[in-house]
Amino acid sequence: MAQPLRVALAGLGTVGAGVIRLLHENRDLITRRAGREINVVAVTARDRSKDRGVDLDGCRWVDDMTALADEDVDVVVELVGGSDGPALALARAALNGGKSFVTANKAMVAHHGMELATIAEDNGSALKYEAAVAGGIPVIKGLRDGISGNRIDRVYGILNGTCNYILTAMEQHGSAFDDVLKDAQVKGYAEADPSFDVDGVDAAHKLSIMASLCFGTQLNFGGVECTGIRKILPVDIAQANDLGYRIRLIGHAEIDTSGSEPCLFQRVSPRLVSKDHPLAHVTEATNAVVAEGNYSGRLLFQGAGAGDKPTASAVVADIIDIARGETGPAFAMDAAEMEAISRAPSGHRRGQVYLRLIVKDRPGVLAEIAAAMRDAGVSIDSLIQRKAGAGEAMLAIVTHECEEQAIENTLATLRSADSLIGEPMVMHLLRD
Amino acid sequence: MAQPLRVALAGLGTVGAGVIRLLHENRDLITRRAGREINVVAVTARDRSKDRGVDLDGCRWVDDMTALADEDVDVVVELVGGSDGPALALARAALNGGKSFVTANKAMVAHHGMELATIAEDNGSALKYEAAVAGGIPVIKGLRDGISGNRIDRVYGILNGTCNYILTAMEQHGSAFDDVLKDAQVKGYAEADPSFDVDGVDAAHKLSIMASLCFGTQLNFGGVECTGIRKILPVDIAQANDLGYRIRLIGHAEIDTSGSEPCLFQRVSPRLVSKDHPLAHVTEATNAVVAEGNYSGRLLFQGAGAGDKPTASAVVADIIDIARGETGPAFAMDAAEMEAISRAPSGHRRGQVYLRLIVKDRPGVLAEIAAAMRDAGVSIDSLIQRKAGAGEAMLAIVTHECEEQAIENTLATLRSADSLIGEPMVMHLLRD
Repeated sequence: MAQPLRVALAGLGTVGAGVIRLLHENRDLITRRAGREINVVAVTARDRSKDRGVDLDGCRWVDDMTALADEDVDVVVELVGGSDGPALALARAALNGGKSFVTANKAMVAHHGMELATIAEDNGSALKYEAAVAGGIPVIKGLRDGISGNRIDRVYGILNGTCNYILTAMEQHGSAFDDVLKDAQVKGYAEADPSFDVDGVDAAHKLSIMASLCFGTQLNFGGVECTGIRKILPVDIAQANDLGYRIRLIGHAEIDTSGSEPCLFQRVSPRLVSKDHPLAHVTEATNAVVAEGNYSGRLLFQGAGAGDKPTASAVVADIIDIARGETGPAFAMDAAEMEAISRAPSGHRRGQVYLRLIVKDRPGVLAEIAAAMRDAGVSIDSLIQRKAGAGEAMLAIVTHECEEQAIENTLATLRSADSLIGEPMVMHLLRD
Repeated sequence: MAQPLRVALAGLGTVGAGVIRLLHENRDLITRRAGREINVVAVTARDRSKDRGVDLDGCRWVDDMTALADEDVDVVVELVGGSDGPALALARAALNGGKSFVTANKAMVAHHGMELATIAEDNGSALKYEAAVAGGIPVIKGLRDGISGNRIDRVYGILNGTCNYILTAMEQHGSAFDDVLKDAQVKGYAEADPSFDVDGVDAAHKLSIMASLCFGTQLNFGGVECTGIRKILPVDIAQANDLGYRIRLIGHAEIDTSGSEPCLFQRVSPRLVSKDHPLAHVTEATNAVVAEGNYSGRLLFQGAGAGDKPTASAVVADIIDIARGETGPAFAMDAAEMEAISRAPSGHRRGQVYLRLIVKDRPGVLAEIAAAMRDAGVSIDSLIQRKAGAGEAMLAIVTHECEEQAIENTLATLRSADSLIGEPMVMHLLRD
């Protein structure tokens, strides 16, 4: 059997402790699968004295996180987080030092993945980040290795467990976003500062990583259109339900070939998902990713999107890859092969749209709205009008397929009138 | 860029031609992902003159299939089928010659996987068989690499597209098995001799492969209990539906730790699947696999289980692995590490059971059945009695959880009475 694989681990929070626990609990099986022992020989974390309930005997404790890269190890694992700062410094130092680097840090990979992949290649080291996307679901390996022969036409999915937990709870109890969020924070499903999750940033990080992997294009986190779930009302969920849909926060990327050259479309937004679609049945903190290959057809990967154990599972799978010597290019091809691509415009995209308006309840308002839609060329598939507050009415409209620009034009007209109360809610339907 | 990878291909049926077409159609992308060109340089097939609609220019044609292993290539791909005979001879020759070997041949892997994995290891070559299980779904890589850190507690799924197509059609149209089978044969969803599919043998091949991979145990195809779908009546599907279930052919494997030492339980059989379970929504020729890891939690992989394009996708993914040098052990660990394990007895297994009896419609029959169940300690969760043919009644019973042996005992008692007409139908419920 080969020499043990020596691992240095940065970060002993729930995931870091989970990795140590997993390596211990499944030690025999992991040794057999990796073909060698995997030993954590050095660790770093903020607080040396804290009891984490894991055995750190035999681990060197390193106080300076970046210095972990200087340890005599084969792999450095980073579970600290943060797109820049110490995590990035450690990544650069480890890879430059010819060490393989494993991370769960989606923000860092989304922002600096190209640079890190290049350093890894230049130094013959491996960059692995299975845990950065969709927790315990091996979707990075699925896309990188499982369907590597395919031109992938579209990738989309439920990428944020917190949002899905909140949407499912709103669905089940008819509760308001703020109440469910508070409850989720108490239960540990949402962070004290929930904005990365509920505003879609976390999902956007993951989406941009998957898009690169699927399309062979350079990472472009800045090119993700991003809308979160804060503005969804219980009434939206109820109306969607009546119409045969669930609301899910969907990250969606594809190559747009409609123009003179291919562009990259990336969007995170709440969508209406038909109850016939598998993603409509993905509840609570579960994640799911759909990839459509030109030969594989549609594939679905589903499982736990977060949590210390699933995330540890993904981290350890990467470490085992390295132990086996299966250490090819991070984004499925050499960084130099990844194509620069422009962000796709979205105005010409066609689809059905859900529109919820709160309006003054006075004569002529419906005529005003109908006229604005007609003038923009938007036709109505279904419409429900209900009483909202005092003197207010709520209109929930699903349009026929139209260009997104036409919806924008409709809203521009309506905003210049005075019947709208507050901002309209616009959600696209997920096309099957 | 590295030297092109030279491939020899045996078999130019729909999958073989699909592989050639895929390598051609996605050539640029595949070269970027593989880090080198992939060239099919030699082929063999039964009929040299047949037009397959693919470009074979530049390929050497080899008449003797086994001689393909002597070609100056890096990889031999076998898409001929058959557990023994020429396919096995080619596999042995290629691996012994230090060439990597890629196959879609589930029967051969199920029967000879241990031997072939050992030859591969001894000769430093790779054995890859992603296409042998679940068509285009990268489930072999998912289990081998994606959750390699986990103790996998259970693996199960819908592994045969033909059966699922037939069951879905019976469900939708209320048709009889024989009629749907004939229709499926006309449409190309079922073979002229359908027994490998409808009797569960094909699913059993796949299950035994997944079991080895998941549990680190030696392949044991002979240890799979196997029941097909021929005896399912439209009335079974209708009753199951009324009770909240769909019927699916499920392959299911787990390590049984209830005895003094661990045993391997492997079963292919039609099951009642709750409509709440994702597998209940897997229709037509789609396949789906669920794996439960002790850290990953429950994972679902779903997609096209057969067809030339999905299968070609899996074959080419294996070839790309080899081009990248990602060529570790076939069954996730060295063959010598795979444990011998006994077949688990099943009498003590507990679960709910669906029982359908056709009985003579005369006084006292229900009392007879109820007494037989009571004496065996089986209690009834739900029961429907309907008129069947003239002088016949049909009883559909779902039991409370009980030992499988108790069901056997009930049936033994009933068989010795004279009220049963034909063989009872027994289907286990899939436990959530």
